[in-house]
Order: sequence, then structure tokens, then C-alpha cells
Amino acid sequence: MKTRAAVAFQAGKPLEIVDVDLEGPREGEVLVEIKATGICHTDEFTLSGADPEGIFPAILGHEGAGIVVDVGPGVTSVRKGDHVIPLYTPECRQCPSCLSRKTNLCTAIRATQGQGVMPDGTSRFSINGEKIHHYMGCSTFSNFTVLPEIAVAKVNPDAPFDKICYIGCGVTTGVGAVFNTARVEMGSTAIVFGLGGIGLNVIQGLRLAGADMIIGVDLNNSKKEWGERFGMTHFVNPKEVGGDLVPYLVDLTKRGADTIGGADYTFDCTGNVTVMRQALESAHRGWGQSVVIGVAGAGQEISTRPFQLVTGRVWKGSAFGGARGRTDVPRIVDWYMDGKIEIDPMITHTLSLDEINKGFDLMHAGESIRSVVVY
Amino acid sequence: MKTRAAVAFQAGKPLEIVDVDLEGPREGEVLVEIKATGICHTDEFTLSGADPEGIFPAILGHEGAGIVVDVGPGVTSVRKGDHVIPLYTPECRQCPSCLSRKTNLCTAIRATQGQGVMPDGTSRFSINGEKIHHYMGCSTFSNFTVLPEIAVAKVNPDAPFDKICYIGCGVTTGVGAVFNTARVEMGSTAIVFGLGGIGLNVIQGLRLAGADMIIGVDLNNSKKEWGERFGMTHFVNPKEVGGDLVPYLVDLTKRGADTIGGADYTFDCTGNVTVMRQALESAHRGWGQSVVIGVAGAGQEISTRPFQLVTGRVWKGSAFGGARGRTDVPRIVDWYMDGKIEIDPMITHTLSLDEINKGFDLMHAGESIRSVVVY
Repeated sequence: MKTRAAVAFQAGKPLEIVDVDLEGPREGEVLVEIKATGICHTDEFTLSGADPEGIFPAILGHEGAGIVVDVGPGVTSVRKGDHVIPLYTPECRQCPSCLSRKTNLCTAIRATQGQGVMPDGTSRFSINGEKIHHYMGCSTFSNFTVLPEIAVAKVNPDAPFDKICYIGCGVTTGVGAVFNTARVEMGSTAIVFGLGGIGLNVIQGLRLAGADMIIGVDLNNSKKEWGERFGMTHFVNPKEVGGDLVPYLVDLTKRGADTIGGADYTFDCTGNVTVMRQALESAHRGWGQSVVIGVAGAGQEISTRPFQLVTGRVWKGSAFGGARGRTDVPRIVDWYMDGKIEIDPMITHTLSLDEINKGFDLMHAGESIRSVVVY
Repeated sequence: MKTRAAVAFQAGKPLEIVDVDLEGPREGEVLVEIKATGICHTDEFTLSGADPEGIFPAILGHEGAGIVVDVGPGVTSVRKGDHVIPLYTPECRQCPSCLSRKTNLCTAIRATQGQGVMPDGTSRFSINGEKIHHYMGCSTFSNFTVLPEIAVAKVNPDAPFDKICYIGCGVTTGVGAVFNTARVEMGSTAIVFGLGGIGLNVIQGLRLAGADMIIGVDLNNSKKEWGERFGMTHFVNPKEVGGDLVPYLVDLTKRGADTIGGADYTFDCTGNVTVMRQALESAHRGWGQSVVIGVAGAGQEISTRPFQLVTGRVWKGSAFGGARGRTDVPRIVDWYMDGKIEIDPMITHTLSLDEINKGFDLMHAGESIRSVVVY
């Protein structure tokens, strides 16, 4: 069949909206009509050429929602008509990682996904017989796409595609980091570095977890209002702090009898390795946990004095919010439907597929929290 | 009163065994007759002058056991005749850290302890009216010493001083890192870097926890027999590995259906920041935890790519094995008395106070696991 898609032919060039040939689903695969897709920084990272693992030509996009329109042989967990969210972190429930019960990082199809192909080693996309690569196992910048059965989460059919697509990455990454990775308790103190599309979701996760003090840190003062909209209690602009940021934050988090200070939980949502260090070092002596969410540039490293760890701070990371896609994503959709989490105000721009490059422009200009393409 | 003590008058010089004036215990303090003390690398670190926080003249030693011979006003938790182990990490049970239930790093007397004085800001030790500093709140290289009540653990009076003194630091640090910090489960895989007095105790902790695979890593082949003595199942000498150590260890830990490899838990007992990185990176993708126990040189830093954390590895540290001294140390003494843990074979040398400098020589020569001074 043919499908309209925004194709990344080359790093650093705008996407081109063209007709692409799409093969139907093979064994264990499903064909999904994507109804909406968010545009995420990770798409931008790859499109820019900064991602050393980027492969071209490819159909980017990994934050979508749609409807199953066909299934290949052997598919049992979803059927035609099911509403689904594609999962760049699949959940096979059978690999050593899934069975460990300690991680969401299913390894069933990791190798082929990284190579931009389906688990059988081939691509379903082509133009004039020339192979076009899949991306993060999703390729939601195509109106129709093929996914392994283990890489779709069946969700509430009443949920609006143009909102829940954001659960395919940003919402789950932020909210999940709070609940699955950090396991924040009621009454905690927390600092969130970077108030973009991930950071704001960390903030609403913290509000939901009952954190007492939710400090947002961003260089852009316009983010203050955004943070407060989702539960932030204090805003800090590092440029306006007289002196070093870490002691300022440590001081800010002193409460009651605690004269040591430091946050119970800190989250890096910037991808900046200097900020990652600040996030660790502003965690509380003895028990503070710092969670790296942002993706750093190729070859960049984080550093600290080991004394920071020996005195009780914990440095960890979170991918896809520690969420098991097929199990947890439907629950997050339900949380949205129940009004526990908000998505609508974060979707600042809605575009057609033909306007998709404008979504990247808005991101570069810092004007959008999230742009969503509706097919 | 007068007491015999080994005094560190100057960095880099041998200890001098002299008579020292000792004031009796003040409010909330106890006078302890030290019956035995281990000689630990931390004493050596300070004596060498490498410790930027080292203060001289001082009476070093922090791994002792003895008997309470006098108590100051207001002391309620111990009395004359009690057998005790001095605690360089006290447990006041009232500060925000103790009350957090998340850390063992009591902060009640942290500031004064670091300054080499008692909580009231003065020292009990002097020579001809000249102040001699306390060390790590213990100063077990003195036959008699004064400690805050919150810095002694009352232990089983049947336990032999010349063995349980080791529980004052090395044993608890190693065994505690397994149970309190890492919380190793039955059937785990683990790697221990550095098979000295701490590493061997991590190994026996892992054996006690029921780890399936206990890999010891050391540059010295003579440590193979030592490791096996306490439960090590595999020995790796990095000098004899053809190629990089991390992929070798990751490969060694692949089991059954798990083709990814990496240990569930890794422990650095070297203090070498390069080894700390290897320890993190040889932890299992998705859930591997790496625990820094060793103390690095001043100003040294650990580094890694943040991708290591984002893909599920956790970097943490352990001080005094995460043990709450007054609560956990008596239990570890009981474990020794019950035969659950071994200490006797690790005490390779027993010396008199006059021979204490020989203990440092044995450590430098790598000939001792632990030397103990018996008064």
C-alpha cells in the first residue's frame, strides 16, 4: 500500500512529505493507522545529525497514537479496531529483562530496532524499491506504519488521539520517572532541572505523588508560569542566583530541624552533563536520589567526586519513565481520562503533516511545549 | 589520668608511643579502656598526609573494642563494665538523619568530630598541656579514650576483643554494604574489586546473602586463595585478561537465557576512580547496582557516560556499610559469635602497642589482611 509520510532523507535537512510504499504486517506484526504524533526533541536530535546512531533515509517520529487496521499471522494481543500507542520500548514479557521484574528495558528486539529495521531484519518502508528505515521501532511520522505486536499498547478507545499521543513519550517519561524510577513519597522535596516537555511532566508527577516542595530550575523566566501551572512551588533561574547554584538549592531545601539541606529527589531533564552534576550534588546527603532523564550529546561524560556517593547520594537514570509499555501506558491513559494528569495545556500547537517542519522550527525557537501533527 | 597511646605528631612520620594526659568523661561521655584495635587503611591515609582533612598532633585509630570504665553525668545507655565498640559513625536516634530512616549518617556530632574534638569543642587528650586531637571520634590507638555515649555500641560480653574490634570498621563496612546498601538477594551475581580487608568482608557478606556468582578482581594473584576462603567463586586478575576488563566481566556474568551480561551488584573496594568506573560499567544493563566503598584521593573524580545510568545502572556509595552503629553493630557481633561470619582468619597479625608501626609496614608490604594491636 501507499502512505503519506514525512521522510528524513538526510541529516540536517527538512523532512519531505512524500508517498511511501508500505508492506503489510508479517508474522507477529500489526499495521497501525497513526492518527496523531508529537514532535519530540529526540526526533530533532536525530534529524540534526548529532545522534551518532542516526540512520538515513528514515521515517522519524516515536510519539504517536492510532488504530490497528490489520494484523499479521500469530498476533493475539490486539485486533483490528483497537486503539493503540506505539512503544519505542516494547514489552515482550518473555526476555530476561522483562522477566527480571527490575527493568522496563525489554531486549527482545533491541538489536534490529537500533538498525532501523523490523525484527526479521527488513524494512516495510520503501520508495521506488529503495529502502527507507524505521525509527525507534515506531516511525509515527508516517500516516500508516507497521509495528511488532509487542510494541503497541492497547488503550481506552474513548481517549483523544491528539492528546494521548504525548503519552507515547513525554508524559510517560516524566511522570514515570517520578513513580517508577524515583518512587517519590508523599511529603518529599524535589528539584526539576529543565522545564520543557519532559520537565513539566516530572512536575505534574511530583504533584500527583504529593511532594511538598517542587523546585523548577530553568534559564528561561517564561517557564515559571508553565511550571506553576502543573504544581511547581518554587522557581529558580540560575542566571539570577548570586553565586553557585548548588549551595543555593541546598539552602532552599532546608526544612524544620534539617540544617543540612538538599532535595530528596532531583531530576535532570536537560541533557546537559554539567546540569546532571548539579542535580546530583543538590540531592540530600544520606539519601538524595538524582535521576538522569535527559539525553547527553555523543561522547559527553558526567563526573563527580565519589564522596558524593559515599555520603549517601544515589545516581540513577530513567528511560521511558521506567514504564513497561503494554502494562503501564494504558494506565497512564486512564489517569488522563480520570483527570489525574493533564495533557491538553501542554499541546501548544497542532499541525498538519504538511506543516511538520514548522513544528521543529517552533521547538528551536522555544515557542512550543509540544507540537502535535494530526493526520 | 595518664594513658599510653601511639601519637601521630606529624604527617608522614611513625607514631610515637608515649604517656598522654586524659581528662575524664564529661556530660554524655564515657571513658573506655580499649582492649584491642585494628589498623585500617584510613589510619594510614591520614598518617601519610594524603588526607586533606588530617589534623596533627592526633591519636589515630578507629577500629577498637573495649570496656566502659567510667561514665559522665546523664549517661543512660551504657554503664561501667559494658563491653563496647567505638563508633566513628555515631547513632543519636534524634537528628534528622537518624529520624529519616533512610541513612546511617548521623549528623549529631559531625562538625566537631571532623575538627578532632569532642562535641563540646574541646579535646580530652593533652601532653604537657598541649592539645592532642581526637580522630574520627574514636582514637583507639590510646589504651584509654573518651567517647560520646552515642558513639559506642554495647556488645555481647563473651565476644573476644581482639577479633570483634574489626567489626568497628572493616567487617561492618564490607558485610553492611551487601545487606544495607545493596540489599543483595539470593541467587545474585556480584563482582568485588579489590580483595583487601574490606573486599574480603564484602565477599563473605555475599556468601551469606546467597549470591550464586561471586567474582573477585585483584591485581595480586595471592588474593585468589584469600577470596576463595570466604566464598569467592571466580577470580580475575586484570593483568591476565587479554583486552579490556569490562567486556570480559560482562561476558563472564552471562547466564542461561541472559545474553546481555553484567553483574547484578558490583563493589569497589579499591578507592581507585578508574576502577569505580569499571565497576559501574560491568553492572547489568537495566538493574545493575554499583556501590563505591573505597575512599578516593583528594580531588579525584569519577566519570562515565550518562547513557550508563539511563540504561538502568545505579551508582551509589556506602559508608560504614550503611550500618546504624548502636543498632546494627551488636547484631554483627552476634553473627560472629553464631558462626555466621568469620573474622579470625583475616586477623593475620597481632601486635603490642609498642609494635604498632610494624602494622603499618605490614600493610604497605601487602603482607597483612588485618593487623590488630592488643593492649
